[in-house]
Amino acid sequence: MNKRLERKIRYGMVGGGPGSFIGNVHRMAAALDGEIELVAGAFSSDPEKSRQRGEEWFLDPNRVYGSYQEMAEKESSLPLSERLDFISIVTPNHTHYEIAKTFVNANFNVICDKPMVNTVAEAEELVNLVREKNQYFCVTHNYVGYPMVKEARHLVRRGKVGNVRKVVVEYQQGWLANLIEATGSKQAIWRTDPQQAGVSSCIGDIGSHAENLVEYITGLKIKSVFADLTTFVEGRLLEDDASVLLRFNNGAKGVLLASQICVGEENNLNIRVYGDLGSLEWHQEEPNKLWIKYSDRPSELIRRGNDYVGGYNTSYFTRLPAGHPEAFIEAFANLYRSFARTIRAWHESRVPELKDFDYPKVEDGCRGVIFIHKVIESGKTGKWVDL
Amino acid sequence: MNKRLERKIRYGMVGGGPGSFIGNVHRMAAALDGEIELVAGAFSSDPEKSRQRGEEWFLDPNRVYGSYQEMAEKESSLPLSERLDFISIVTPNHTHYEIAKTFVNANFNVICDKPMVNTVAEAEELVNLVREKNQYFCVTHNYVGYPMVKEARHLVRRGKVGNVRKVVVEYQQGWLANLIEATGSKQAIWRTDPQQAGVSSCIGDIGSHAENLVEYITGLKIKSVFADLTTFVEGRLLEDDASVLLRFNNGAKGVLLASQICVGEENNLNIRVYGDLGSLEWHQEEPNKLWIKYSDRPSELIRRGNDYVGGYNTSYFTRLPAGHPEAFIEAFANLYRSFARTIRAWHESRVPELKDFDYPKVEDGCRGVIFIHKVIESGKTGKWVDL
Amino acid sequence: MNKRLERKIRYGMVGGGPGSFIGNVHRMAAALDGEIELVAGAFSSDPEKSRQRGEEWFLDPNRVYGSYQEMAEKESSLPLSERLDFISIVTPNHTHYEIAKTFVNANFNVICDKPMVNTVAEAEELVNLVREKNQYFCVTHNYVGYPMVKEARHLVRRGKVGNVRKVVVEYQQGWLANLIEATGSKQAIWRTDPQQAGVSSCIGDIGSHAENLVEYITGLKIKSVFADLTTFVEGRLLEDDASVLLRFNNGAKGVLLASQICVGEENNLNIRVYGDLGSLEWHQEEPNKLWIKYSDRPSELIRRGNDYVGGYNTSYFTRLPAGHPEAFIEAFANLYRSFARTIRAWHESRVPELKDFDYPKVEDGCRGVIFIHKVIESGKTGKWVDL
Amino acid sequence: MNKRLERKIRYGMVGGGPGSFIGNVHRMAAALDGEIELVAGAFSSDPEKSRQRGEEWFLDPNRVYGSYQEMAEKESSLPLSERLDFISIVTPNHTHYEIAKTFVNANFNVICDKPMVNTVAEAEELVNLVREKNQYFCVTHNYVGYPMVKEARHLVRRGKVGNVRKVVVEYQQGWLANLIEATGSKQAIWRTDPQQAGVSSCIGDIGSHAENLVEYITGLKIKSVFADLTTFVEGRLLEDDASVLLRFNNGAKGVLLASQICVGEENNLNIRVYGDLGSLEWHQEEPNKLWIKYSDRPSELIRRGNDYVGGYNTSYFTRLPAGHPEAFIEAFANLYRSFARTIRAWHESRVPELKDFDYPKVEDGCRGVIFIHKVIESGKTGKWVDL
Repeated sequence: MNKRLERKIRYGMVGGGPGSFIGNVHRMAAALDGEIELVAGAFSSDPEKSRQRGEEWFLDPNRVYGSYQEMAEKESSLPLSERLDFISIVTPNHTHYEIAKTFVNANFNVICDKPMVNTVAEAEELVNLVREKNQYFCVTHNYVGYPMVKEARHLVRRGKVGNVRKVVVEYQQGWLANLIEATGSKQAIWRTDPQQAGVSSCIGDIGSHAENLVEYITGLKIKSVFADLTTFVEGRLLEDDASVLLRFNNGAKGVLLASQICVGEENNLNIRVYGDLGSLEWHQEEPNKLWIKYSDRPSELIRRGNDYVGGYNTSYFTRLPAGHPEAFIEAFANLYRSFARTIRAWHESRVPELKDFDYPKVEDGCRGVIFIHKVIESGKTGKWVDL
Repeated sequence: MNKRLERKIRYGMVGGGPGSFIGNVHRMAAALDGEIELVAGAFSSDPEKSRQRGEEWFLDPNRVYGSYQEMAEKESSLPLSERLDFISIVTPNHTHYEIAKTFVNANFNVICDKPMVNTVAEAEELVNLVREKNQYFCVTHNYVGYPMVKEARHLVRRGKVGNVRKVVVEYQQGWLANLIEATGSKQAIWRTDPQQAGVSSCIGDIGSHAENLVEYITGLKIKSVFADLTTFVEGRLLEDDASVLLRFNNGAKGVLLASQICVGEENNLNIRVYGDLGSLEWHQEEPNKLWIKYSDRPSELIRRGNDYVGGYNTSYFTRLPAGHPEAFIEAFANLYRSFARTIRAWHESRVPELKDFDYPKVEDGCRGVIFIHKVIESGKTGKWVDL
Repeated sequence: MNKRLERKIRYGMVGGGPGSFIGNVHRMAAALDGEIELVAGAFSSDPEKSRQRGEEWFLDPNRVYGSYQEMAEKESSLPLSERLDFISIVTPNHTHYEIAKTFVNANFNVICDKPMVNTVAEAEELVNLVREKNQYFCVTHNYVGYPMVKEARHLVRRGKVGNVRKVVVEYQQGWLANLIEATGSKQAIWRTDPQQAGVSSCIGDIGSHAENLVEYITGLKIKSVFADLTTFVEGRLLEDDASVLLRFNNGAKGVLLASQICVGEENNLNIRVYGDLGSLEWHQEEPNKLWIKYSDRPSELIRRGNDYVGGYNTSYFTRLPAGHPEAFIEAFANLYRSFARTIRAWHESRVPELKDFDYPKVEDGCRGVIFIHKVIESGKTGKWVDL
Repeated sequence: MNKRLERKIRYGMVGGGPGSFIGNVHRMAAALDGEIELVAGAFSSDPEKSRQRGEEWFLDPNRVYGSYQEMAEKESSLPLSERLDFISIVTPNHTHYEIAKTFVNANFNVICDKPMVNTVAEAEELVNLVREKNQYFCVTHNYVGYPMVKEARHLVRRGKVGNVRKVVVEYQQGWLANLIEATGSKQAIWRTDPQQAGVSSCIGDIGSHAENLVEYITGLKIKSVFADLTTFVEGRLLEDDASVLLRFNNGAKGVLLASQICVGEENNLNIRVYGDLGSLEWHQEEPNKLWIKYSDRPSELIRRGNDYVGGYNTSYFTRLPAGHPEAFIEAFANLYRSFARTIRAWHESRVPELKDFDYPKVEDGCRGVIFIHKVIESGKTGKWVDL
């Protein structure tokens, strides 16, 4: 019998300083299940801000650092009994690569926000490094953490919609309909600055979530893309709207719409998968529902938390009974929990369960980066581009 | 003072024999308001079937014909006091051209189902002929008859959404997901047979409605198209799915999705118009609602029949108070009523009111035909094609 | 073989003068299917207004009357070949009784708006008279004309929800939230005036529709009622809000909510029927949908026009394919068509089909009147009252 | 300047052993914001189960107890620096009273699940005790923690709906439609057993949430109730369905429907508040939305997380941007956070902010208990009963 690890899984955070949205999301997601503990952090490249965040979050000041380099150095030297189990990287995109490389090289497992890195070369190097160092690595394409997304994937695999023919996936937002990066919005500034965001704003920030969602649910691979990209807001340097035609490896067709200028849209990620026997529809803003439609009988509304929800996800990926809605944080927490349980299994010399492995990995992050670059290439050349 | 025409407007129908769906729709739409009377018809090219329909609809047998040619000849020779005010053509697409030409040449006003004709040359010839003969001509792009579509157009014109940037219009159906034309479905056979349907099935049958809807609401013109067309059902000869990228004359971008293989979809025509100030959303299957969304205040749900509904349409294009739903037939009837009132004005030597003219005209029908052909061309060449 | 009646069914209307909402609804409902013809009318007690309406509707001036008495007298004396097949009564409630009695006594079939009459004694007398004179008599509790209401009844009868335990039916409106009867609203004036509306406004005008709907769908009878009635608008003489507890003959319980002061509600009639195996939910404002819910599998959304819709109603009570919405007028037209086909069968010496008889009859009208009076009695006494 | 408390708020839990639903909810709610720490517990009256839970949750075994009495005794004796800041009681209803009394007497602050206690006498005694001992006490009527519920209250207070006239509140569930307490469902057993649940099942378990919600949003007090109570499931000892007429202190009327036998309903708590100027509608299962409706302009859909959401709740009671849905746990966490911040303020000798006090207090819990008993009394006597 394996020995039980009698403590929470421990992690440190890089980024997530005062005012950060996504850092706080990671912290909540990690905290939810009582299995993971935040014990260290380099929350900001400004040491005073980092210290302030550490205090707000009641950390031991000795483990709050002024830079990620310092954190890597100090935390690496701790005895195994105190060592962090993983690092969460929640900084702006362009810094992911160096930070991730540093910690993987120092033999830490890593959770990294998306897009994983800014160039394909970096992405591929990171894949190789992670494999070489044999670390666990998760990229927070968090929308696949929703139980109804997992159920959708399960239904496709069970053949409930037959052969997939057509996919329509949208990720519509409206918050960048004006040049708010010029009026001081921190969230807008780094997403629209080529120095920080890389080659893409809209596809990089949200389109790659849509790509990940499509491939996760359908099990198909996007084979080629044709993109019409637009920068609607004058003065902006990267695209803020994208209409992308997709062709899949099984002959299916698709459309991926992503936009940051659709006034009135909030975080409208949704997907429809049409097969020859049935179809599925899911909307992120009402995540507890999943439609399955047929040609010869009434549409069915599958709702999270019911016993009839199939596959492994009933008990594992939900926390509340039907009718008690779950939402964004729980989906995010599913990634953290799976990742932490994988690490716990390692500590306890167990093979993790399959469901423990159900989080996006470094290869998924790499695919997202490739997708971004191919879409941008298609937009520039006006041609179909293969992935 | 002008003399009042003290009778209903009279029409004859070509097509609409036993089993016809669309013929019955036209008949109901015409009957609804008590201003129009069906008095003649050549309901089928089979004289016995024509006779049978005439009997079912209680027509004078003397005015029920075995062919449209006979009908044109006989009805043309009637004295003015008995003469038909217009002809409705509800036959399969490929026959519209000859029938329409025949009746316009005989100085009849015409309502013609869509697509108006099967080739661009025919369409342009018909435009010229109608102008030359100075007849009224309506093409039943019926979805613009919905009051909330008219309200959407009104709101765009009033500047409520600002400059239009992005349009997403979809027309998704699922009824042709299998090769039902091989199992005797009459509705499927003529829509998928190149001899009858022309160059296109999906775009011709439903995509052109979407095109008409977009241009009607936004007041913009589609400048060029890029299409990915697919025939998903093996053995079918025309496309059954289309994803079309749109570019508009003002720089706006758009996406038009039309499909006949989206299992579980019924008649899901819907449109979203995103401007720089607000956005609109309308769904044909819930036609009494229109969403308007803003970035800085709550979304508003506009519902047909309320006093706050703007423009001319409150009293003119609706028949029931709010909460008493109207639907497809009333929208169709709005085209018939407008058309009939235009003719009535002519009889009474009055200038019709602007709202009486609010029906799709021969030029709109022609534009639909051009759109169909340009999309097919793009699909074949894999290139952007200008309209 | 029986002889075919080779003409439309003919009717005359009493009431429905200029400005009337419900008269126009009856006219459209009758016209829709091309089987019924309006040929006479006493549209107003003001002969000039009656004449004006007759002209608008293109009637023969000789059959447009200045009073219903004149109409009854003249139309009775016509030869059988010209005789009206039925009379539609669309006047204010308090006049129904005398008008209906007059025409039934003159051996006319009658369609009468609801509530049928203003007192229980009148209602019972009318039941007896109709039976004695052996005429057909329909009361326009029009909401049971909706196909999805008929489907709901069909599903209950097939046992799909098991034994009915609980029913919640609501009819919420907001248009009388202010004293608009004091500002000239004709529609408001007669509904809130005890001289015209009788003992009740809210229950009489809309609550009785809810009662009819419940008993139609469930097949149960309301056994007793407990009502809390309120007049919220100062200066109003009748109740404008009612909360009614229901007990049914099978032990089921129910709640009937009717209100005219629910600001923001338009014509929100909806019903939920909970059985021990499943439940049903239907909303009049989205009439093409019917939910059926289960405890052990996903909820199903039944949509009008699909082949899977059970019972006799697929082809008979709908006119359009799925996804082409039908609405209020079609439901109303279903009553007219059934009634007219019953009369046609009589002309042709046939037994009408069962579905032809599927319209509310004089007994249903009587039950509605009893319901109204029992609810009012309960409201006054503060006690449970048996029906 | 006051001294900052440089640690998390600490609590211990009574109840919540293996298999407990609500214990885990409390734990997650407390953990979410990183301000509260679980450090002790008597999770079960079975010491082994308690130990097991403590291990699962990684607690110090020395602070995991076999009984609440032991926990009270031991924890009371700890030095102030280690003392628990509050106790969470998540045991079955009938045990709340003794446990709460014990800990309040030992000068602990308490969060207690609802219904607070099983008799009015106990409730009133507890109110007095809490006041006497001057402890903070929260009852988890958790639905008032939803941001859109707080916004609804805010809008009522700002006069957006005018004077409230009519309220309809429902709490419909279906999970007790069969006698599942006879087949071993632990959740069902204690809720339907008079020894544990007290005088009521349906009203006690869910109706009292509805009562709390109504009074919270409207600011009104229920003055009297008339209830029709039913036990539909044979063999059950307490009511499983309740229809309750309400009268409020301002003359408003209301209806409260609660049921456990509505097959297909999950956790359908919803409320509509009708005033003379507007109305509000909120559904727990889609908690991020709040409708406000008017008579003279379009309905508005208020969505959580937008800047236009009024009052103090924008930044304080939400954690995610618009479109990133929040749900049940966040609402629950709002109670915990407010309560913890109240205690933190006490530690730091500050007056808590008003929003910190925005949680249901012992008086609210007492009112819930009174409500339950009055409804049961009305159901038994068939009379209106004053609160």
